[in-house]
Amino acid sequence: MSKLAVRPEEDGQVEAVVREIAQAARDASYHMGLADGAARDAALRSAAAAIRQKATDILAENAKDMAFAAKKGLNAAMQDRLLLTPDRIEAMAQGLEQVAALPDPVGRTLAEWERPNGMKIARVSVPLGVIGIIYESRPNVTADAGSLCLKSGNAAILRGGSESLHSSTIIVECLQAGLKAAGLPVKAVQAIPTRDRAAVGAMLRMADLIDIIVPRGGKSLIERVMAESRIPVIAHLEGNCHVYVHEKADPEMARKVVLNAKMRRTGVCGAAESLLVDRKVAAAQIPGIVDALAAAGCEVRGDEAARSVDPRVVPATDEDWDTEYLDAIISLKVVDGLAAAIDHVNRHGSHHTDAIVTDDQDAADRFLTRVDSAIVLHNASTQFADGGEFGMGAEIGISTGKLHARGPVGAEQLTSFKYVVRGSGQTRP
Amino acid sequence: MSKLAVRPEEDGQVEAVVREIAQAARDASYHMGLADGAARDAALRSAAAAIRQKATDILAENAKDMAFAAKKGLNAAMQDRLLLTPDRIEAMAQGLEQVAALPDPVGRTLAEWERPNGMKIARVSVPLGVIGIIYESRPNVTADAGSLCLKSGNAAILRGGSESLHSSTIIVECLQAGLKAAGLPVKAVQAIPTRDRAAVGAMLRMADLIDIIVPRGGKSLIERVMAESRIPVIAHLEGNCHVYVHEKADPEMARKVVLNAKMRRTGVCGAAESLLVDRKVAAAQIPGIVDALAAAGCEVRGDEAARSVDPRVVPATDEDWDTEYLDAIISLKVVDGLAAAIDHVNRHGSHHTDAIVTDDQDAADRFLTRVDSAIVLHNASTQFADGGEFGMGAEIGISTGKLHARGPVGAEQLTSFKYVVRGSGQTRP
Repeated sequence: MSKLAVRPEEDGQVEAVVREIAQAARDASYHMGLADGAARDAALRSAAAAIRQKATDILAENAKDMAFAAKKGLNAAMQDRLLLTPDRIEAMAQGLEQVAALPDPVGRTLAEWERPNGMKIARVSVPLGVIGIIYESRPNVTADAGSLCLKSGNAAILRGGSESLHSSTIIVECLQAGLKAAGLPVKAVQAIPTRDRAAVGAMLRMADLIDIIVPRGGKSLIERVMAESRIPVIAHLEGNCHVYVHEKADPEMARKVVLNAKMRRTGVCGAAESLLVDRKVAAAQIPGIVDALAAAGCEVRGDEAARSVDPRVVPATDEDWDTEYLDAIISLKVVDGLAAAIDHVNRHGSHHTDAIVTDDQDAADRFLTRVDSAIVLHNASTQFADGGEFGMGAEIGISTGKLHARGPVGAEQLTSFKYVVRGSGQTRP
Repeated sequence: MSKLAVRPEEDGQVEAVVREIAQAARDASYHMGLADGAARDAALRSAAAAIRQKATDILAENAKDMAFAAKKGLNAAMQDRLLLTPDRIEAMAQGLEQVAALPDPVGRTLAEWERPNGMKIARVSVPLGVIGIIYESRPNVTADAGSLCLKSGNAAILRGGSESLHSSTIIVECLQAGLKAAGLPVKAVQAIPTRDRAAVGAMLRMADLIDIIVPRGGKSLIERVMAESRIPVIAHLEGNCHVYVHEKADPEMARKVVLNAKMRRTGVCGAAESLLVDRKVAAAQIPGIVDALAAAGCEVRGDEAARSVDPRVVPATDEDWDTEYLDAIISLKVVDGLAAAIDHVNRHGSHHTDAIVTDDQDAADRFLTRVDSAIVLHNASTQFADGGEFGMGAEIGISTGKLHARGPVGAEQLTSFKYVVRGSGQTRP
């Protein structure tokens, strides 16, 4: 931990520290890419054991972070995210074991074919290389993100929020203990050992050593990373998710899906933020849905048409259509049919997750085809936007970009591929 | 063509022109993404007909470009690439028809599964959106790259070299005629109507309207694009490709494969630039291979060990191991076994295409697994590094990056995907 002494003004030194880490990660990544899946899984299981064994030490390190955070005046929600408890530590250990149990994403034959000249071509999955993860002061992300990188044969450079430095450091030590036990290079997981924010900038410039950056956190963090990075970024900026209640929607299903999409958990990116109701059924559908939302403590902000149907709806401004509340608030707009709903979603949404409720298969198909989002659902809650719910195991986030990974980013999405060609002396005419 | 009047110093105006084009491309991309594959194919066939019909006009426009290029003092090789002939125009038309005949890359179900709660999830291919192509003064690239973008349901913004402005413009008009005939938006293919280089910078900044940039050309062009772009880039910087002659290589096959890999065409990115020969067979293999290369007019630059075996080998410097000659020159290094060969390729190669010649299956498997390149071959020529030779139809280039596309980039690689979820009222517990 001696490098913790690096001071903010010594940017050159921060750069050198980060470069040394990145170079070690690059070297480790070659070994990881060639290791057996069984060895990578053994490392994850050993890491889980180390976390359980070191639970008392982890709590002690976390207490240092909590004291620092309290002194710094971190708000209660952020302190809660930083806090580790015996239950949360056990959950981290179990998470590592779950990732170990996933199928190996490396070395899969994605496609294979033979050419008329007899050459056999296979497309085979390989690790990406070195992944930089930049996140907030959430110690559990250290274990989650680190484990997905290792599972997929990559090396990880972890940069958590400054308040979680001690907690993250000891969790990384547990991951490294797992690597060591499995005979893998310990530098395949490293934490940045300084609170200096210059370290983030240094990471984002190291395109020669880091293959991809995954920011995980709030909008300002992700915007900074996307603006500064010279390295490709997998990120989602926000989830302004919609539920559209079509004219042929079953009222009971509409109420149930909207309530779940909005209120199951309001702080997740798959939470619905905007409700669209077809004008033809506005009077029939809105009161029942507002009943359910109001009973759950949700504020509904609607346009004139919605308010004329239900006086509990408070006025919305134009800004509401573009707002991700992450809170018990939903915007409500009455729309003139399917095309208008699709247009509204594509214009105001964030290309994350959007749902239609309808008994009309044709309308559903049009919505699913025409809404330009990573995840589109028919008659199901937007809260299913989650790698685990998709059956993909753990996820590192949900990408709203269209390149490489879109939607839930799990271990499989942290791989690339190569073409393996087997011949018998073929030359090209 | 009135916008040709834009002058270099009026950067603000160039920016506005490019933004107008990019916005029109974005609008057109929504329509393209929803169009039937049959309509997109019809557009490509109509464009081929338009190119044949306008052949005389195309030759006339090309003559203007050739005159400009001659006045500018462009070298002979570049003038040859710029030149169109009746044969080359017919080849462009046939290229469009070949792309039309490829399978539709859009709307494919890439995977589908059902969850225990009854939700059906499908991963379905969709277009990327708006693709910016930046290339040199090669009019045929206008047709090739434009057609792959249209095939994959994208909108294309084409920025060819300034000397090809008139040729590119009329070829784009033919593509637009095809789009119009098929009832598709003509703005799905547009050329940047100015020679001003500021237009390239403007494109590279328009991350809100352009989804991906594909540079096609020499190293300096691609380096500039990669350094400046705020938009993800699919590119390959160079192809420093290797052939490794293993100790168990059949001499006849080794000679044949090396000769083809180097000399079939020296100017392509899949041409071999470096030959590695195992020390154990250096004396046995090198003279025969040098015989073949020398007879074909190839200079061989080797290390001490190679020169001691064959006096026709001239001295190599350290720089040679990292050089892509694109010419009738090859570097030759004697290596101590398989591991040293793999290490040399990973250190000095460009992660493009590398081959091993051997009768030892284990050695081949190790090479194929451990060499970190987009394409790895056993007993076949590196000149097969080509989308057409892979059976993927036309290609827009070969990517040496690991994100999104790696290896040949054809129509399929110009797509993304979305998750389509069909439920019956499921909510998340």
